[in-house]
Amino acid sequence: MSTSLWLNNALIPSENAHIAPTDRGFLLADGLFETLRITRGTLPHFALHMKRFTAGCHTLRLPPPDPLYIRRACECVLQANQHTEGSLRITLTRGPGPRGLAPSPTPHPTLLITSAPQPHTTPADVTLHISRYTRPPLSPLSAVKSLSYLPSIMARIEATDAGYDDALMLCPQGQYVASGTSGTLIIELRNRLYTPPLQSGALPGISRSRIIKSGLCAEKNITPEDYRESSSAYLINSLSITSISKKLTNHNTDKKDLIGDFLFL
Amino acid sequence: MSTSLWLNNALIPSENAHIAPTDRGFLLADGLFETLRITRGTLPHFALHMKRFTAGCHTLRLPPPDPLYIRRACECVLQANQHTEGSLRITLTRGPGPRGLAPSPTPHPTLLITSAPQPHTTPADVTLHISRYTRPPLSPLSAVKSLSYLPSIMARIEATDAGYDDALMLCPQGQYVASGTSGTLIIELRNRLYTPPLQSGALPGISRSRIIKSGLCAEKNITPEDYRESSSAYLINSLSITSISKKLTNHNTDKKDLIGDFLFL
Repeated sequence: MSTSLWLNNALIPSENAHIAPTDRGFLLADGLFETLRITRGTLPHFALHMKRFTAGCHTLRLPPPDPLYIRRACECVLQANQHTEGSLRITLTRGPGPRGLAPSPTPHPTLLITSAPQPHTTPADVTLHISRYTRPPLSPLSAVKSLSYLPSIMARIEATDAGYDDALMLCPQGQYVASGTSGTLIIELRNRLYTPPLQSGALPGISRSRIIKSGLCAEKNITPEDYRESSSAYLINSLSITSISKKLTNHNTDKKDLIGDFLFL
Repeated sequence: MSTSLWLNNALIPSENAHIAPTDRGFLLADGLFETLRITRGTLPHFALHMKRFTAGCHTLRLPPPDPLYIRRACECVLQANQHTEGSLRITLTRGPGPRGLAPSPTPHPTLLITSAPQPHTTPADVTLHISRYTRPPLSPLSAVKSLSYLPSIMARIEATDAGYDDALMLCPQGQYVASGTSGTLIIELRNRLYTPPLQSGALPGISRSRIIKSGLCAEKNITPEDYRESSSAYLINSLSITSISKKLTNHNTDKKDLIGDFLFL
């Protein structure tokens, strides 16, 4: 079945959608995105995603689109594609520009909204490699879900090569765990749940902030040793929760339902 | 006048060139590039650029295109556009892919080659801001000219806002200068020329390696203090040399011709 997407100011068939080869998103990773869960045809926590997206636009000096406009465009995409369970991605770039780093004084940003079906089956447990790719140094960009995903991609590729499913990335200085390649790490230590603080290089994830705010999970610097000693461990993002199978320990994943139900029910 | 470009396997008019919205270069900065100087209709140091490009492909696990194929494609672009002085950019991405970080097991990389006219007039002296954006941590990606340029873009934007022309970026730990936003820093101290070592976060630039190999310039950790005390300073890349105007000192730029003639004559 052909799908539709939103490009700039219209819903169009995906096969008719073209990005200009001068788009700064393509040439320089000059943009940001959000990935949202679609469940029962709705977009839970849309306002939280828009809050992070708008803050990211301000950091990148991109004019933030009106969240109401984005909401209506998302609804057009969902309705056209009849995706009731799955994921939706909102991408914004600085748009086509002249050669070089300096942005055009009158940018025409590119807005792309796509959806994909994805049955929310329980993902299998994953094994994790501790990657030699670290998170970028702390900067105003740390809080932005920017297009720069190459370190995470390479961490994932190397993990697969080494026989693991995915990877953990360390903080820029290397002493603490920062996050998974596309999700927040949660570990269980002495029957309490912990997640790395933003200063460790964690992305300020939506699921992450919800679970901290709820009191289910606290922030704590997590060393690789803490991770190895944890009685259970999980990766969460806006789409799902995955248990980490640590192979060596007879680990206990009974917190998965507790966290998963809080986040996704 | 309409220009042409090379996309994947053909020379086409630029206005007919489209990138798929599923291209991982656009969505995840999953790719790399080279910028070459065009002078007298030729591409000096093509082999050095191809060496870095091929090494980058290996790091990214992208099948490296045949340099002879790239050369012929570049010549088609130069001939079609009649650009005898200017710049040429070769971009390679992992191409269209499914949702998520994991690359397709059978990637179809996107190859884009564009040229732009640019008279090689002497650029005016520039003033530099010392940015709060640092270079990424040292990793196998440090030697790759990847698509991830957002820290440099933001450093440039903030410099302009602060009344400067461009910016210097510090090393990941912040104690040494790493590079300009799109060029290698060279400073003159006690009548000798120095440039930051790769360990400071400098990109292994082509002009940089040529000038070091020639003996004109040595590697040395450069503190912001060294930079401020230097009697002259320059930014070089494959396209040009620019003198840094330090405003406060009655600086001496008489090394510009020495370096520029070596690199570009």
